[in-house]
Amino acid sequence: MTMQDAPLRIAVIGNGFMGRIHTQAWRTAPRFFDLGREIEPIVLVGRRPEGATAARDLGWPEYATDWRDVVTRPDIDVVDICTPGDTHAEIALAALAAGKHVLCEKPLANSVEEADRMVAAAASASSVAMCGFSYRRTPALAAARALIAEGALGEIRHVRAQYLQDWLSDPDAPHTWRLDRERAGSGTLGDIGAHSIDTAQWLLGDDITAVSAVLRTFVSTRPPLAGQAGLGGVGGSGDRLPVTVDDAAAFTATFAGGALGVFEATRMATGRRNANRIEINGSLGSVAFDFERMNELEYYRADDPSGAQGFRRIQVTEPEHPYAGAWWPAGHGLGYEHLFTHQIVDLVRAIGGDLDAAAPSFAEAADVQRVLAAVAESAANEAVMTPVRRVGGEGSES
Amino acid sequence: MTMQDAPLRIAVIGNGFMGRIHTQAWRTAPRFFDLGREIEPIVLVGRRPEGATAARDLGWPEYATDWRDVVTRPDIDVVDICTPGDTHAEIALAALAAGKHVLCEKPLANSVEEADRMVAAAASASSVAMCGFSYRRTPALAAARALIAEGALGEIRHVRAQYLQDWLSDPDAPHTWRLDRERAGSGTLGDIGAHSIDTAQWLLGDDITAVSAVLRTFVSTRPPLAGQAGLGGVGGSGDRLPVTVDDAAAFTATFAGGALGVFEATRMATGRRNANRIEINGSLGSVAFDFERMNELEYYRADDPSGAQGFRRIQVTEPEHPYAGAWWPAGHGLGYEHLFTHQIVDLVRAIGGDLDAAAPSFAEAADVQRVLAAVAESAANEAVMTPVRRVGGEGSES
Amino acid sequence: MTMQDAPLRIAVIGNGFMGRIHTQAWRTAPRFFDLGREIEPIVLVGRRPEGATAARDLGWPEYATDWRDVVTRPDIDVVDICTPGDTHAEIALAALAAGKHVLCEKPLANSVEEADRMVAAAASASSVAMCGFSYRRTPALAAARALIAEGALGEIRHVRAQYLQDWLSDPDAPHTWRLDRERAGSGTLGDIGAHSIDTAQWLLGDDITAVSAVLRTFVSTRPPLAGQAGLGGVGGSGDRLPVTVDDAAAFTATFAGGALGVFEATRMATGRRNANRIEINGSLGSVAFDFERMNELEYYRADDPSGAQGFRRIQVTEPEHPYAGAWWPAGHGLGYEHLFTHQIVDLVRAIGGDLDAAAPSFAEAADVQRVLAAVAESAANEAVMTPVRRVGGEGSES
Amino acid sequence: MTMQDAPLRIAVIGNGFMGRIHTQAWRTAPRFFDLGREIEPIVLVGRRPEGATAARDLGWPEYATDWRDVVTRPDIDVVDICTPGDTHAEIALAALAAGKHVLCEKPLANSVEEADRMVAAAASASSVAMCGFSYRRTPALAAARALIAEGALGEIRHVRAQYLQDWLSDPDAPHTWRLDRERAGSGTLGDIGAHSIDTAQWLLGDDITAVSAVLRTFVSTRPPLAGQAGLGGVGGSGDRLPVTVDDAAAFTATFAGGALGVFEATRMATGRRNANRIEINGSLGSVAFDFERMNELEYYRADDPSGAQGFRRIQVTEPEHPYAGAWWPAGHGLGYEHLFTHQIVDLVRAIGGDLDAAAPSFAEAADVQRVLAAVAESAANEAVMTPVRRVGGEGSES
Repeated sequence: MTMQDAPLRIAVIGNGFMGRIHTQAWRTAPRFFDLGREIEPIVLVGRRPEGATAARDLGWPEYATDWRDVVTRPDIDVVDICTPGDTHAEIALAALAAGKHVLCEKPLANSVEEADRMVAAAASASSVAMCGFSYRRTPALAAARALIAEGALGEIRHVRAQYLQDWLSDPDAPHTWRLDRERAGSGTLGDIGAHSIDTAQWLLGDDITAVSAVLRTFVSTRPPLAGQAGLGGVGGSGDRLPVTVDDAAAFTATFAGGALGVFEATRMATGRRNANRIEINGSLGSVAFDFERMNELEYYRADDPSGAQGFRRIQVTEPEHPYAGAWWPAGHGLGYEHLFTHQIVDLVRAIGGDLDAAAPSFAEAADVQRVLAAVAESAANEAVMTPVRRVGGEGSES
Repeated sequence: MTMQDAPLRIAVIGNGFMGRIHTQAWRTAPRFFDLGREIEPIVLVGRRPEGATAARDLGWPEYATDWRDVVTRPDIDVVDICTPGDTHAEIALAALAAGKHVLCEKPLANSVEEADRMVAAAASASSVAMCGFSYRRTPALAAARALIAEGALGEIRHVRAQYLQDWLSDPDAPHTWRLDRERAGSGTLGDIGAHSIDTAQWLLGDDITAVSAVLRTFVSTRPPLAGQAGLGGVGGSGDRLPVTVDDAAAFTATFAGGALGVFEATRMATGRRNANRIEINGSLGSVAFDFERMNELEYYRADDPSGAQGFRRIQVTEPEHPYAGAWWPAGHGLGYEHLFTHQIVDLVRAIGGDLDAAAPSFAEAADVQRVLAAVAESAANEAVMTPVRRVGGEGSES
Repeated sequence: MTMQDAPLRIAVIGNGFMGRIHTQAWRTAPRFFDLGREIEPIVLVGRRPEGATAARDLGWPEYATDWRDVVTRPDIDVVDICTPGDTHAEIALAALAAGKHVLCEKPLANSVEEADRMVAAAASASSVAMCGFSYRRTPALAAARALIAEGALGEIRHVRAQYLQDWLSDPDAPHTWRLDRERAGSGTLGDIGAHSIDTAQWLLGDDITAVSAVLRTFVSTRPPLAGQAGLGGVGGSGDRLPVTVDDAAAFTATFAGGALGVFEATRMATGRRNANRIEINGSLGSVAFDFERMNELEYYRADDPSGAQGFRRIQVTEPEHPYAGAWWPAGHGLGYEHLFTHQIVDLVRAIGGDLDAAAPSFAEAADVQRVLAAVAESAANEAVMTPVRRVGGEGSES
Repeated sequence: MTMQDAPLRIAVIGNGFMGRIHTQAWRTAPRFFDLGREIEPIVLVGRRPEGATAARDLGWPEYATDWRDVVTRPDIDVVDICTPGDTHAEIALAALAAGKHVLCEKPLANSVEEADRMVAAAASASSVAMCGFSYRRTPALAAARALIAEGALGEIRHVRAQYLQDWLSDPDAPHTWRLDRERAGSGTLGDIGAHSIDTAQWLLGDDITAVSAVLRTFVSTRPPLAGQAGLGGVGGSGDRLPVTVDDAAAFTATFAGGALGVFEATRMATGRRNANRIEINGSLGSVAFDFERMNELEYYRADDPSGAQGFRRIQVTEPEHPYAGAWWPAGHGLGYEHLFTHQIVDLVRAIGGDLDAAAPSFAEAADVQRVLAAVAESAANEAVMTPVRRVGGEGSES
């Protein structure tokens, strides 16, 4: 590594799940990749004073509770936003105004309007702005994209994306802020459906043009978390609290290039912990991926000899595979955290001048927001669904 | 086996793929199941005189080319219809009028109107009428249905059905009658999508109430089969012939009981030969199936102990499993043909008095037709799709 | 089909599991394959008079209880032996002496001596003699053999064969004749280990030269079957009966061509119903197979491009695949019974003059017997195992 | 985290693959686990001066080239040995003599004699000595061990362990020091076979008592690495260098508790990059694992209801699973590096007083060495193999 610059000084805003994993990524990235400069973690920001202990355990020299103080500090170069979506716009705008590089967790914002303001701010800023769709940094998906980009799959016809989780499958799983529209914006759709949308558009290098969607909330009230104060006293039935977001989303989609998409996102797929799946079928081949087996890519070539055709289970851990070569020898798999390490690597490279590495840009991420808005708009009017016309009513015995 | 009756005398109408497999099923069923009476194959009907040789090789004592002569013969008890969909109604109506038991391949008809006439005829007939949705006789799916019926999956939330084939993936795969709307009625939708619809409604014991659909024809012209005369001279571009049906269908669906369905059927999923898949998620568990591994059922129970939960790969070859006990010891799998043997077993049992065995009835099969009609109607108006509103047009870089 | 000869007239000796499946195979083979002549089932032979009803249900015109009367009948062309191993030699010798074609279930005999007599009789007979190692007729394994024979795997280094069942896993599973050395010859080794040996030698076209083996009987006594009289009053502990054969066998093996083999057979692999597995690694590629997914072959090519290498899951149901083309379209799998249909096809072709089709010959099958004998001999002297020399005895804490 | 002590000061000896991954583990462990004290990396030791740059990139404040100077330094508490096996004994003995805690990579030594000296030194030392069999820290394997320890599998009958790699499959893959007996001690056997032996004995809590083994060197000479000087001028055929260790090892094994083991280790299993597999069958259940899918454990329970039995695919990422709870939510997998983090956690806990955490102890690791020695001894005398006695020589057509 040739040190060309002073260390890059980092503030992470948010100390939840994402804050922890970004912290680990900042620590790990310079040790396995040549970033061109040192990384210096400066401060972690949380909302409560008692977060200081955990911050120290995570290795942070400093902890703060007001992000406003932090994002303008002269000893900070990068503001890494790991808070819930309703605060993304405000923090990012302040950080960009202060000349900081910004990495913002997905979804970019809770609305298209917010997202557009962020895009405008990024466009007029001289610093780097990037949205954290981390799954793009899965070596298997990056390898899939390379195959598609080089034409190995031919003309793309089908996109089949499912993001299946099950942590809300139990109707008595407790309420969280993620189930409150005011704070979370949307439910499953924005949380995990957004990943599928970004992955699909990015893999194909193509845009979704229209959608037809259904959203469902299967469990409309949930018990409060132990010790949780009611949401402003607005209880649901009895002591239960209302769920004001979707539990599941399903939609068909058309792509500008002609492909047909089918998307589904749910937190109620009992038994599926984190099945972020996508399959792409083209005229010359197919790829299939499931994050539950993140080190594998299934790949089918239609030009394999007759009788010897089949989906190949590729272990995406070879030196040739995107990102993989920096780590361990072939066959020694990576884990979830490494996506975030790769994301930091790309961000720092963008800061170093390789601007294309900062993907998705705020503009691309705002485009995902537009698709989410179209999905929500479509789902709001289920009248567009065509009824099955049965003679005597609902029954199939009519 | 106690012989309670004279032999059941069989005519099979149609000598293509389905005619061959029904023939094998009629031969095999009485050898492994106690049907209560002997089976006597009488005559196979094809369109061309030269079919006689193949009929003899298949073991038929007689071959005929006009089904009209056959369905009224006094030495025939059962008329088994294995022809393309456009002839189902006429043959079935004639056979029922002649007092014959009727097994009719799916889809029941090419339109709701035809299907309704068949339902009416069946309702006024004293003989048994049954539609051949053979996948219901897959032991793994029958086992899944038993689990759902006994409540093992709890409240059903998700149905995820895909029927993926790839024999039209190559744009130069030749034209066939299946690609001509006049003769086939519809394309992928009616051919394989119908299976998914029937399977889903049957597994859940529930009805699809509304759909939102997209159909696609990715390859609009195809070369004629070697030696094939043009379709009445109506060629497409150059010598190629027009494809007038769908290559692929995708739709979301709502069920009366509240479940959310996502369906997809295609003949363009490169690398998927016959992936008839369905996954059902309920509040207490899930099942997943793929016909490419037809002897397996994946089953998840949410009440398995924490830390020891996971989808079980059940080999559905145990004595306890539906149909399986009549065959080989556990672990010795069945093949595609055995679905048809099981179907014959159920038909003969229905003829013997167990009327529920003749499922689906024509009425149930007509209900599938209604869902297909709703899908086609929805797809005909893509205007109901909600556009993604981008500032500067299609591009994600707007 | 061109009828070149009179019908081939069949007697099956044995009406257990194997008798049933051979019956089905004789019925099915002429319907899907061009055998050149008709098949005429004449008589099924069982030991008990009450077998007559089941014989009729299986479609046999005649049932007999004394094989001696049958094998010399002038109206029989083929004697198909499906009895336990201790009777194979006597029946086969009588049938060959009477000029009949003989198909004999595996293992060929219960000893090398018996096997050698059968080989000698076959050598001097003008009729066809074939041993029924049915797994050779699995399309996936036949496809694997073709790959190896054409050199696609290069120099073969590793054979890794396991045949895992679990029906004796429960110590209270009842005693059967298969657990009695007098009648069964050996236990797991001869019953299923023999399949692995034959498959391996056949796939490689190579011979096992030496072995080092361990046999184990984990459960030494078992309760009698309900209603079972004691074995001549020789009870084990209390009312339980002694198990006098092996429950499991494991051995390493060297091949003449240099490959290293590892074999394991057991009926105690809890959860594995019929996992007949084999993997072959060569310098240029590998194949892997598990009968629990009998329609699939995993195939790896070392010359696939770097980064796109992986085991392909081939569905061995294409027209190009051995035997598969006669059946259903690609993706529509076969079942266990079809191996036996294919075996009949090959036998009849051998009778028709294609002598190589009658594989394995008695000589080849006797060679498997020699390997079994070497395994038993090796296992009889566990003194050849090298002890782990620990200082203070058994403990790893020494 | 309560700081109870001064920081633990670390020296890592060896800067190859293992040195890099231990470095990462030391950095990560205190961030996700409560170790009770801070970790302070002091110095990395390599053989060549030019390693200093890589050491800095890896985050080390200091780099040294003579381990002898380092292991006695007063500012070092832990000596972590990541060098080839021929130097383990000397370094460990020096470090223990200097009162340091020692973590030593596997195999413990290149001979039983060396291992015994290390055991003796550890026994008389007051510091902690631990051998790094990292696979013990795979959550899936640790979960399997817990199941076995609590009796969930009942009486253990079968151990089926394979460690399959393929990086030497190509005969022209270059020579390395790992193929030289003087430096590596043994080949595949000690390198990866040792893992299988340790894993098996540890999972069962039982000892291997005897073995029967075959070793093979399939490729006896290899070209030198580009730029590699000959091994003291001792070339093989032409310019190729001799391979003096085994390419593959296979052995049967008996366990003190009665189980039967089958082991295989190879670097020639074309297509298997790092398939460290083990399956255990007991009277009540089974577990199966493959490191190529390290986040999964297959688990079969014989007491699941009839008809609903099958291997469960458990994602071992739940809070209940060993080590897993400290990381990411369920369904977000770990990678290879995390085994080493867990190993550091256990070492530091042992240093803090939880002595059982330092497993395997040198004594346990020396026991693995004894098994390796027995395997080598057995393989040295292939005369103990029982020949297959064929009449006319090698041919199966005899």
